[in-house]
Amino acid sequence: MENRLIDQDVLYEESLEKILAYLEEKKYFKARDELLRFNEVDIAELLEEVTEEAGLQKTVILFRLLPKDVSVEVFSELPSDDQVDIINEITDKEIDYIVTEMDFDDKIDVLEELPANVVDKILEKTPKSERKLINTFLNYPDTCAGSLMTPDYISLQKDWTVARALEHIKKEGMDAETVYTCYVKDTGRKLIGIVSLATLVITDDNVRVKDIMRTDFVYENVYEDQEEVAEDFKRYGFLAIPVVDNEDRLVGIITVDDILDVMEEEATEDIERMNGVIDWENSDKDYLDISVKQHVLNRLPWLIILMVAYVFTGMIITRFEATLSQVICLVAYMPMLMGTGGNTGSQAATLIIRGLATDEVDTSDALAVLWKEVRVGFVIGVILSAINFVRVCWIDGNGVMVALTVCTAMLFIVMFAKIIGSMIPLLVKKMKLDPALIANPAISSVSDIVALTIYFLMAMLFLHL
Amino acid sequence: MENRLIDQDVLYEESLEKILAYLEEKKYFKARDELLRFNEVDIAELLEEVTEEAGLQKTVILFRLLPKDVSVEVFSELPSDDQVDIINEITDKEIDYIVTEMDFDDKIDVLEELPANVVDKILEKTPKSERKLINTFLNYPDTCAGSLMTPDYISLQKDWTVARALEHIKKEGMDAETVYTCYVKDTGRKLIGIVSLATLVITDDNVRVKDIMRTDFVYENVYEDQEEVAEDFKRYGFLAIPVVDNEDRLVGIITVDDILDVMEEEATEDIERMNGVIDWENSDKDYLDISVKQHVLNRLPWLIILMVAYVFTGMIITRFEATLSQVICLVAYMPMLMGTGGNTGSQAATLIIRGLATDEVDTSDALAVLWKEVRVGFVIGVILSAINFVRVCWIDGNGVMVALTVCTAMLFIVMFAKIIGSMIPLLVKKMKLDPALIANPAISSVSDIVALTIYFLMAMLFLHL
Repeated sequence: MENRLIDQDVLYEESLEKILAYLEEKKYFKARDELLRFNEVDIAELLEEVTEEAGLQKTVILFRLLPKDVSVEVFSELPSDDQVDIINEITDKEIDYIVTEMDFDDKIDVLEELPANVVDKILEKTPKSERKLINTFLNYPDTCAGSLMTPDYISLQKDWTVARALEHIKKEGMDAETVYTCYVKDTGRKLIGIVSLATLVITDDNVRVKDIMRTDFVYENVYEDQEEVAEDFKRYGFLAIPVVDNEDRLVGIITVDDILDVMEEEATEDIERMNGVIDWENSDKDYLDISVKQHVLNRLPWLIILMVAYVFTGMIITRFEATLSQVICLVAYMPMLMGTGGNTGSQAATLIIRGLATDEVDTSDALAVLWKEVRVGFVIGVILSAINFVRVCWIDGNGVMVALTVCTAMLFIVMFAKIIGSMIPLLVKKMKLDPALIANPAISSVSDIVALTIYFLMAMLFLHL
Repeated sequence: MENRLIDQDVLYEESLEKILAYLEEKKYFKARDELLRFNEVDIAELLEEVTEEAGLQKTVILFRLLPKDVSVEVFSELPSDDQVDIINEITDKEIDYIVTEMDFDDKIDVLEELPANVVDKILEKTPKSERKLINTFLNYPDTCAGSLMTPDYISLQKDWTVARALEHIKKEGMDAETVYTCYVKDTGRKLIGIVSLATLVITDDNVRVKDIMRTDFVYENVYEDQEEVAEDFKRYGFLAIPVVDNEDRLVGIITVDDILDVMEEEATEDIERMNGVIDWENSDKDYLDISVKQHVLNRLPWLIILMVAYVFTGMIITRFEATLSQVICLVAYMPMLMGTGGNTGSQAATLIIRGLATDEVDTSDALAVLWKEVRVGFVIGVILSAINFVRVCWIDGNGVMVALTVCTAMLFIVMFAKIIGSMIPLLVKKMKLDPALIANPAISSVSDIVALTIYFLMAMLFLHL
């Protein structure tokens, strides 16, 4: 028997080459068999590479040679461009099969991305009842629980025995991810309990569902924000969470595999916001697929807002122009002081914003945070001041008074920047806004203004200007 | 019947108050019953609040009144401080029960956090065979697959029928999260296939396991980095992935619920690194639990490295001191030009670093990225220059030549910053390092140096200085 556990990346690369070689020689069945050594996710990725290397026509041929059940899964995994191309190339009967067999949540994902004419083509093939459901699902806002859920779940009656429940599951027999938790509803479709397949399998056949179902389950409203849903998954470690409408009726379930994508999306959003990029379109498009125009629109707002902040730094400098022209060497330390203030402020802001996002820090911790940052700022400030004293005094040879100006300014700037950087996110959170929206650029420009003011005050103090 | 689906947050707050009131009146059983309306995760959190509000003693009493199976789960969910306190307060028999019943992966998590003397106390109660296993598990590095896995999985024989397999699962009957995928090993303990509980339940009783098991499964090596493991979960949407040792023997499985934490940890690490905070201890400690000393050590390195970069900006300014003192108003625009360069550079860097982390961008896309950033930079540069022309010329009244100096500098600075910000992360990735390590502070200081140089060159050009 072949050793299965060879390096999967190596296997992938070798197979891709083999497949391309087979296609070159028009040995389509051999190429197909090579593909089938992989699971559906990898097959989809291999087909993408085939399209790139050998053209769409070859991909379509290979796709049509796949066993039908595999082709449905592979289709859901393909990027939407390839889906459109394939839909346009295959027969109506094949489309029919894919549309009928695709999981409901995959179908929603696919439909959300496809152009209108292809969506119509697919909806045509869908039974009327399902078409209505699809339209409802497509109408949920993009980032709420409703847009993540699937209506494919197992319903049990509370008076059924375990044996009957298992029989029912066997008959309904659906996708792995949706079958592991079963839901018990009352006559008004209201959710009253959940029971896991694991519990059913290990419980005696004649026990009743109502005696083993859990009633302390967690659920989400269809309009709950996806970030909150992800929080609940993380908190409780569930594989699926039921979703109810405003009348508490069970309308679908969310499975954990979709949450992994949500978590990545939300982390990306936070990271971008913290660094001054606003994704207006809430798109999950790849960097390279976003147009130049959209990139500009995403980045320009903060840069323009900060322009206004720089008017203040400009004013402060103009106000002290006379001072500066007297001791022009002070200008040389301006970038360092402002830069260090900005950097050290965004370090603090980053830790607090992330702490708020992961529930490690809360607005009620404000005093504890302040006390910590004051001490951290003091220690860092003293160390950086000491380094700079040596530099300004001995290396640059600018004299003790200039060194004292730069170093006391450094100490105060670092401490103020730490305080500003840590307190502003807490304040924004207190105002019920997303702290990540107070991007680090904003923290740096506030600390720039503070830094310049402190610097010139110290110059007045020590140099009597 | 009571309406179950009331707002869960409200329920939680109300119950906490009730529990505290009951404890006040020493009605422990009533408090216990109120607790039991919740699931284990919430009970643990309620107990934490009880400790804070009413003292440890009350928590211990409540904990001991919990049904035994609930208390084990609750114990695993408590923060380690509370675990230590409880271990010290309860009887050996109670410890015994908790230690025996806890899931293996929870036990590892608990032991990793507890102080040595408590660990000894727990290990004493553990059977010798398991103690050896625990020691092996505790020795895997903190961020590899081995540290995430549990040895609690279901093994099946390939020649078993489905009926026998289900019987076996019923007998082994373990935790939900570990039972949904079963593993088939050959005689040498090498993994040869996997089969999901869903498949077993919907397949006829007399079919053999080998005929329904999947052999195209994905697996991880025990020493695989946890970030890669998380990638695989996201890519394939699995609920569990098997882990093999260097001889391809199955040693454990990783379940998706542990991956949610890993994803959050990795996102936090990236966010911190990008903003110049290095977590040397790789700790998952909360912000407030990290000591001042450690906070200083985590933040100081970048600040000191950047000090060196500022020596260059200082040198450039000193070199042009004569120029500056002639047209002192040029100083007023320095913070704006340097700040905008830094901000726009980190926008680009952020998008590329995140794109690399989520596999949206690859080093082979360098040219496409460059072309996109040049265009984005040009558009943004032109817009910001236009705004500044108005400001410098009409609002500040500094004349056309100064305005031209500032505006052409702005255009070039934005374009260069976009190029630097996008290319440096790709370069770092090419060198097989983590692009997030090239923190945004580094990008800003490189762009500071570029910005000053461009600015003074433009001043020489337009003002003939």
